[in-house]
Amino acid sequence: MDIFIEPIGKLINEFSKLPGVGKKTAQRYAYKIIGMTESEAREFAESILNCKRKVRYCKVCGNFTEGEVCDICKRREGNIICVVKEPKDVIAMEKLHEFKGVYHVLHGVISPMDGVGPNDIRIKELLARINEGGVQEVIMATNPDVEGEATAMYIAKLLKPLGVTVTRLAHGIPIGSELEYTDEVTLSRALLDRKII
Amino acid sequence: MDIFIEPIGKLINEFSKLPGVGKKTAQRYAYKIIGMTESEAREFAESILNCKRKVRYCKVCGNFTEGEVCDICKRREGNIICVVKEPKDVIAMEKLHEFKGVYHVLHGVISPMDGVGPNDIRIKELLARINEGGVQEVIMATNPDVEGEATAMYIAKLLKPLGVTVTRLAHGIPIGSELEYTDEVTLSRALLDRKII
Repeated sequence: MDIFIEPIGKLINEFSKLPGVGKKTAQRYAYKIIGMTESEAREFAESILNCKRKVRYCKVCGNFTEGEVCDICKRREGNIICVVKEPKDVIAMEKLHEFKGVYHVLHGVISPMDGVGPNDIRIKELLARINEGGVQEVIMATNPDVEGEATAMYIAKLLKPLGVTVTRLAHGIPIGSELEYTDEVTLSRALLDRKII
Repeated sequence: MDIFIEPIGKLINEFSKLPGVGKKTAQRYAYKIIGMTESEAREFAESILNCKRKVRYCKVCGNFTEGEVCDICKRREGNIICVVKEPKDVIAMEKLHEFKGVYHVLHGVISPMDGVGPNDIRIKELLARINEGGVQEVIMATNPDVEGEATAMYIAKLLKPLGVTVTRLAHGIPIGSELEYTDEVTLSRALLDRKII
């Protein structure tokens, strides 16, 4: 890297820390920064600091927020809770503009292989919310992988004695895809969960 | 974008300004920043500011430098000058570890379509360097496109009366590629410039 003068080499190194960014891409980003005006670069740097400084987790649901409690928790009724793994899953759900309930971000899933147990994710916070009353349904929206499924099953077992309906997002063939190219696990799940039309 | 809280939306917006970065990628980068420690984020932001603040252009060759004159101009003999379009082309040449001369960065190429004339790029600075004496050869290493070729020809015409040898990087079939897949312009150029073996 000593082809680059120090400040450029350092910046390339920083950009390389971003997901999926190699040396070549980091280099292009660094050139872009050098080509910016002083104030543009300052705005860029400040937005990084600002984001890190201002963004924290909602004390109710665990989603990103600027205040103590996020806007979703403040504004919406809490009778339906959608449980997700990460804050970015909240964004994915919100893009639908269809779900009008609140969220609960686990900040992880149970994964014994990675040493993550039930106490390492925000399960007791979820139980506390349900014990406060008023919750009718909990939608488990963890990813359809081994850890996501296991976590959904684990939480469902905990919640059922509390008299709350626990549901899971449907699995099946994605809309617009073709039967031929659907993987076998998904296809057999779609067959199992077939609906009367 | 109002799905995102303001500091995240702002950062996504900033990342979207980088070349080839769309909203989705910018979003991933922003999450990465949020997941960093306070000091990691500060280091990232500071490297942007530092790069913008410290990097300027060498007053001799126009390459990136921290001081007045870049390390290449300071350390190497100036009898061979390699003329390139942009500072990143210097990096490309330096990676070879073969060229031991100095550079001259034009910061552009002549392009009447874009309103860039000979006076808009660093041609007179190149002439001044040659008039100072001691230059034996000027290698034109602008890109092999229309503007790069035209700029190389234009500069070559200016330099010949000054008694300096002007050369151009060879064009031809790239090493490792196949004749079948070489474009016609490159192939006919390779035929024209064939060498005795």
